[in-house]
Amino acid sequence: MIIDKLYNEAVKFGPVCLGLDTSLDYLPGCIKGKNLSNGEKIFKFNKEIIDHTKDLVSCYKVQIAYYEALGLDGMTAYANTMDYLRKVGKISIGDIKRGDIAATGEMYARGHFEGDFQADIITVNGYMGEDAISPFYKYIKENEKGLFVLLHTSNKSAVDLQDLKAEGKEVYLHMADLIAKWGKEFKGECGFSSIGAVAGLTYPEEFEVLRDIYPDMFFLVPGYGAQGGTGKDLSRVLKKSRCAVVNSSRGLITAHKNKREDEGYVEEIRKATSQMKEDIVKWL
Amino acid sequence: MIIDKLYNEAVKFGPVCLGLDTSLDYLPGCIKGKNLSNGEKIFKFNKEIIDHTKDLVSCYKVQIAYYEALGLDGMTAYANTMDYLRKVGKISIGDIKRGDIAATGEMYARGHFEGDFQADIITVNGYMGEDAISPFYKYIKENEKGLFVLLHTSNKSAVDLQDLKAEGKEVYLHMADLIAKWGKEFKGECGFSSIGAVAGLTYPEEFEVLRDIYPDMFFLVPGYGAQGGTGKDLSRVLKKSRCAVVNSSRGLITAHKNKREDEGYVEEIRKATSQMKEDIVKWL
Repeated sequence: MIIDKLYNEAVKFGPVCLGLDTSLDYLPGCIKGKNLSNGEKIFKFNKEIIDHTKDLVSCYKVQIAYYEALGLDGMTAYANTMDYLRKVGKISIGDIKRGDIAATGEMYARGHFEGDFQADIITVNGYMGEDAISPFYKYIKENEKGLFVLLHTSNKSAVDLQDLKAEGKEVYLHMADLIAKWGKEFKGECGFSSIGAVAGLTYPEEFEVLRDIYPDMFFLVPGYGAQGGTGKDLSRVLKKSRCAVVNSSRGLITAHKNKREDEGYVEEIRKATSQMKEDIVKWL
Repeated sequence: MIIDKLYNEAVKFGPVCLGLDTSLDYLPGCIKGKNLSNGEKIFKFNKEIIDHTKDLVSCYKVQIAYYEALGLDGMTAYANTMDYLRKVGKISIGDIKRGDIAATGEMYARGHFEGDFQADIITVNGYMGEDAISPFYKYIKENEKGLFVLLHTSNKSAVDLQDLKAEGKEVYLHMADLIAKWGKEFKGECGFSSIGAVAGLTYPEEFEVLRDIYPDMFFLVPGYGAQGGTGKDLSRVLKKSRCAVVNSSRGLITAHKNKREDEGYVEEIRKATSQMKEDIVKWL
């Protein structure tokens, strides 16, 4: 089960998930100036970051939107990044938030658990219910793959739908019940399921509540730094169980901006990653 | 406004939206045997279908999952298909069901309203609320683009979340309220908004109800044929207003299977498309 691998990596290297949401704007001058396509530049940047942070993080989350924005050249950079993560033996999370049913869902499974865009784990959207999740079951069982389903997001307008009260509790808690139900079949030796949940860190108390209601659920937590959560907030949950990896993207991969535009940029990114790790593990 | 163009095309050519959910399994022998990559074969098939149906349909919906399944080669076929639709002047709907917030949402907008993967309209998922929709507003206003937001889908497990009762009505009706609110700013001369909704045809009565509550909403209706809806079901709504395009994918693009494996295959697809059009327009 992929969740055992992720859990062990998080125990060994710490819970930081480094987000490669790589915009062209983030590239340092020494890469910007090279005679390469935009996608090649982005891959070069990602590769350097991976090489210099892989002992500090449990996994990498690659936000596919940034690559789709650059068309085929960008998708090549996405494929190269996933391939490189496989080569260095680090866990990749394809942040693709796909969700579609039946034959279409199977095509997404094939696209992101096989071939050029292959990830270890992908994020998915459960608005269409189990039909958008079940096409992935086979891969979870047979190919050591995993899912993080959107549960409660940390953006302002999450309230539009997720916070509606439905039959006694918020819609997102119904989603959590569904995720727990879908994940039952896929529990690893670590006690968590290979179907986990994305839960934002805007309201840290809420994360504690989720942890208590769903003790078998593993979480991908965005929202560290940029979106307001702190290491201390997280530690309250992680002290009870190592049930989450915590993502930061811009906060880490732009750490060099306005400081280093030469090859030394990657040391700034490493420093920021190390600081984030320290900020969380010091409370544990 | 793109919605005016779509509305006019639907009046002129009829409400059929042909779905290019093109699987390798669907290719006729005469294309399968060619010395081309899988993506090239799929594009060749799509191009032939477009050439032979463009006087029978209002638009084409291209389900990106089928292309992602083939990796970079598939994404090239997707890009070529979108490009060809632009060249022949037919409206393209990128069925991508993306949904993400802020900077990430902007990247999806850039990826699918500009560059290689450019569509006229895309499908989106509103689980994260308006933050996942607003990144597209600029393109709707300035670049003649449009959205179809998932409202109520026609799969069995739609009930998991969409049919929960929340504060007096089903979650999907809350989603419909949101779509109506988001779309207010983007009304075209035809009276409909460039932010429309995806509503399945499993329960035709429900479609009538939606039409009555949201008279300004334009619908993309999957579910003709394969998922149970008929032309007569549709006509009850379309007689009141031409508020929808109706998609069929497999029902049309596999019409040649077990009949023609030679160049004549495309005539079978044309015939099926013509029959579908007739089945709807004869009631109007």
